[in-house]
Amino acid sequence: MTDLTDSQTTVRMEYKELVEFTATVFADRGVPADRAYIAAEALCYGDLTGMSSHGTANLTRLYLPAIDEGRIDPAATPQPLADTGAAVVLDGKRALGLWSATDALDLAASRARDTGIAMVSVRDATHFGCAGYHTGRLARRHFVALLASNCGRQRIARAPGGRPAVLGTNPLSLASPAGRHHPYVLDMSTTVVPTGRIRAAERAGEPIPEGWLEDADGRPVTDPGAFDRGEAYLRWLGGDPATGAFKGYGLGLLVEVLAALVPGAGLGPEPVALAGDGGPTGRDDNIGFVALVIAPGALRPVGDFLDQADGLFTTLLDCPPQAPDRPVSYPGWHEAEQAARTTEQGVSLPIERYRELRDLAAQRGLDLPRTGGAQ
Amino acid sequence: MTDLTDSQTTVRMEYKELVEFTATVFADRGVPADRAYIAAEALCYGDLTGMSSHGTANLTRLYLPAIDEGRIDPAATPQPLADTGAAVVLDGKRALGLWSATDALDLAASRARDTGIAMVSVRDATHFGCAGYHTGRLARRHFVALLASNCGRQRIARAPGGRPAVLGTNPLSLASPAGRHHPYVLDMSTTVVPTGRIRAAERAGEPIPEGWLEDADGRPVTDPGAFDRGEAYLRWLGGDPATGAFKGYGLGLLVEVLAALVPGAGLGPEPVALAGDGGPTGRDDNIGFVALVIAPGALRPVGDFLDQADGLFTTLLDCPPQAPDRPVSYPGWHEAEQAARTTEQGVSLPIERYRELRDLAAQRGLDLPRTGGAQ
Repeated sequence: MTDLTDSQTTVRMEYKELVEFTATVFADRGVPADRAYIAAEALCYGDLTGMSSHGTANLTRLYLPAIDEGRIDPAATPQPLADTGAAVVLDGKRALGLWSATDALDLAASRARDTGIAMVSVRDATHFGCAGYHTGRLARRHFVALLASNCGRQRIARAPGGRPAVLGTNPLSLASPAGRHHPYVLDMSTTVVPTGRIRAAERAGEPIPEGWLEDADGRPVTDPGAFDRGEAYLRWLGGDPATGAFKGYGLGLLVEVLAALVPGAGLGPEPVALAGDGGPTGRDDNIGFVALVIAPGALRPVGDFLDQADGLFTTLLDCPPQAPDRPVSYPGWHEAEQAARTTEQGVSLPIERYRELRDLAAQRGLDLPRTGGAQ
Repeated sequence: MTDLTDSQTTVRMEYKELVEFTATVFADRGVPADRAYIAAEALCYGDLTGMSSHGTANLTRLYLPAIDEGRIDPAATPQPLADTGAAVVLDGKRALGLWSATDALDLAASRARDTGIAMVSVRDATHFGCAGYHTGRLARRHFVALLASNCGRQRIARAPGGRPAVLGTNPLSLASPAGRHHPYVLDMSTTVVPTGRIRAAERAGEPIPEGWLEDADGRPVTDPGAFDRGEAYLRWLGGDPATGAFKGYGLGLLVEVLAALVPGAGLGPEPVALAGDGGPTGRDDNIGFVALVIAPGALRPVGDFLDQADGLFTTLLDCPPQAPDRPVSYPGWHEAEQAARTTEQGVSLPIERYRELRDLAAQRGLDLPRTGGAQ
């Protein structure tokens, strides 16, 4: 392990080594080895693609405490509650979502090869990290894959015009092959931004743009710290009613219905939501998620599908841009470009993050890989 | 038929009579009688629920010309291209979308009873009107139903940062039972507003809010007439990049992939999009749509599902509001309340609309029902 210098602000680590170390951490907590590797890839996908608010930053903040508190069961295997062939409902058994989301999508894909479409619907699940990691993996295997999750009983956004928080950020991802190009991978919260963006601004000591948070009376809040003090609420995609707030709210409900109501998971809008003082309430326990896979090759010649996909995404990339230095792309394209750079150049971890991992390795007697040293 | 007075601005008609007259119009154009009635209900749903930009306003503007030009084949029956049981791909044969969308959802529902989930994916389709009519109908039968459509090769919105228009408004609807309450029916364009809202403002001679349209360089446009002059583009849900424009664009692509790429329909982003002068281009021919149905009762006891749905939507309706006179609701609730009022009180048609229908009746020798007279 390279010594750190006082002036050092980041530490470079090979991406593969970061994944392997993270897998060792999960395995050390009781996650079976093959699952631990997938979970590590899912977590480090945030560092790989530049969405650092969803990467190893969440290892010591979210996943390890949840395992240690028994809110995630590291060795649990989800159990089928219903199975029609094209549709499976699983009791998630609080298994590690970082792994179980990929397992659910793989199960849906194996069914969809015959049935054209298949859905695996999970209750009592836990956080699966970046939805785009899981769906993008299937797009590279020529499937169209959708993954969406509610936030269990965690309530941080309000119905338009309502006082109490009733819903979570309810992420939604769709991925599709794009012919010769990087897959299309939409991965979005149905709120304006996910909570990670608010907390990243808070850590950086920076104000946030108007439109992300509002106070109890709906006035804009630009201090990111107000969110974790319970003084501000995330706004929906669409912003004001005139520009589509009801659509963002409606999309949050779309995810709540598909991901949680269908399998019978915990819901944000439960009567207890009305009892609080109006601030964000509840915990992200008993999350529901839906993994839905379409196998285009079961429905028409897969070559025709891929050719048409290629044409679609080529056209987008070829659009003359408004600003010559800002080419047009589509969701997933920049993340894939960043992933290629990270794979070649390594992950640049903030020094605090590196120290967290080093301390963790020391506490548990694990090997943290040698690093590329100061930058 | 009641005589019109010079000062009259609206004419009241029984809702059922408006549907029956519209069905007669479709039947007169060669649509089989049972389909004509469903198509009429789908069209008049706009008048029923107060979304008048999607109601009978489109009869003489959109549907009849499309039939007369051969762009809609009034008697065509969609033909299966693939069928796995849970997934069906149909050649839509340019059948009347107002009817065929409900037929596709009914087919998906009949399959989903056994398979839990089923998808009917249609190419060479035509406009289906208000998506929420079709999905809400299934929610009242205890299904969860999704319907989404691209706009064929019609291009009116741009990739963020791009010059040419590449995608349509790409509507998306999800409906679910809500226990004792009106069904949840999300029905939204993935652009800030649908084109109908722009044209309604133009007809009314009113400016539109900033955020709906932009000019070639991305500056706000508040003159609704600029849209049909080809001088303005619809913006995506989310508005600016900081508040989620890439999410709106990503959702537009989600619909393009699920509704059109999967079945092989016409796409907005085709190379010809790059050849124009940059204004809106193309026609809404070879539309693709996807009808996806989940049968909760095939996956868990339907009573449990309905009870949980009841709890979810009761909680939303019970939210203490920010303004005492503006209670909280959810998508579909206001439309259902308006439908009940219209059913009781009749449809109030603008006098110009009534004259259109009267002239149509006279030309074709049809009976326009007697009206409730002047208001």
